[in-house]
Amino acid sequence: MKIPVVRNILEANDRISKQLKKIFDEKGILALNLMSSPGAGKTSLLERTLTDLAGEFKMAVIEGDLQTDNDAQRVAATGAQAVQINTEGGCHLDGTMVMQALENIDLEGLDIMFVENVGNLVCPAEFSVGEDYNVALLSVTEGDDKPEKYPLLFHISAVMLLNKTDLLPYVDFDLDKATAHTKALNKDIEVFPVSCRANEGLDKWYDWLRQAVSAKRSK
Amino acid sequence: MKIPVVRNILEANDRISKQLKKIFDEKGILALNLMSSPGAGKTSLLERTLTDLAGEFKMAVIEGDLQTDNDAQRVAATGAQAVQINTEGGCHLDGTMVMQALENIDLEGLDIMFVENVGNLVCPAEFSVGEDYNVALLSVTEGDDKPEKYPLLFHISAVMLLNKTDLLPYVDFDLDKATAHTKALNKDIEVFPVSCRANEGLDKWYDWLRQAVSAKRSK
Repeated sequence: MKIPVVRNILEANDRISKQLKKIFDEKGILALNLMSSPGAGKTSLLERTLTDLAGEFKMAVIEGDLQTDNDAQRVAATGAQAVQINTEGGCHLDGTMVMQALENIDLEGLDIMFVENVGNLVCPAEFSVGEDYNVALLSVTEGDDKPEKYPLLFHISAVMLLNKTDLLPYVDFDLDKATAHTKALNKDIEVFPVSCRANEGLDKWYDWLRQAVSAKRSK
Repeated sequence: MKIPVVRNILEANDRISKQLKKIFDEKGILALNLMSSPGAGKTSLLERTLTDLAGEFKMAVIEGDLQTDNDAQRVAATGAQAVQINTEGGCHLDGTMVMQALENIDLEGLDIMFVENVGNLVCPAEFSVGEDYNVALLSVTEGDDKPEKYPLLFHISAVMLLNKTDLLPYVDFDLDKATAHTKALNKDIEVFPVSCRANEGLDKWYDWLRQAVSAKRSK
């Protein structure tokens, strides 16, 4: 079933996304679009990152959820700027929503803008929000077949974080298989196994962020 | 942002869904729409159910996935009829897809038709596929806040299976909190904690299926 209006929506979103990208570029802000299934650990990753890198970078978060501002409250507790977007049932964030959220964020001196998308492996991957990079988060409890079954998100992402590695002894998840499937979709993707709960493996993610911020500043 | 065409799509889907419901009613087939996040265990639940109840019921499965026929192959291995729908990027099944799939299924004498929807807590809940009941599956690794954050699916479901209870000792999941949030959305929902991997708690789910089949036959 082909629905022509979808293309029009995507084209309209691309225009707004380019305006967002221009704003982020002019201010030298690294913009990251963080996507995963519900409950894979996006907010936990942000809580760790915002806390651990608070002395190095000025960071802000745009939180996307259908309902509630639970996640915005969690990240705001780290001291970072946080804005909640409630999509009221909508399955993804889009450029218009992020543009509106920017009105509530002080962009001066900001190093990193995290956009935590709605928990969904499908729809968010189709709507750019002005990001420099897409970041995919997959928890090991979801199964090693997910990159193969939901290929677009892993195809367009610069980084895949494999979260909840503390649960590896209790689940059937083949780290090599998941990595191989993902690299087959996207040979350049960086894969970082981490446990946000056990605070393990985050150093490589932080190094990647440092390099990306540095590259953005020198543009 | 309001997009009028969405209502038209939903209305068109409702018409096809009613046709599907009529087919299932005429044949006395219990139709269930099984929905969850990616990797919550829908296919594992079906593997257990199709195997354990093979002597009691004739069952078929329509599998929805963006790509691959992995899941249809897994359920077909139990001996049940299985048809794969590949949505090629689409985030949910709809009535038209299920109607097409029915052309490949022998409905005579069938007791239960399971529709395993695309792994997604948002979009599938908006598109009826002719089901008698929606069944929500939530894994405890996803967090006890998910019913509150993705309310529609839990609001419209007759049953919530809480899967992966074997992992409860290793995660921060409050069974009572999740149940209370869900009952606040939907006081009549049945909640069954299960572990498909450890084969625990499935008896209540099977009893519910037996009652639902029996009620459908006597209509």
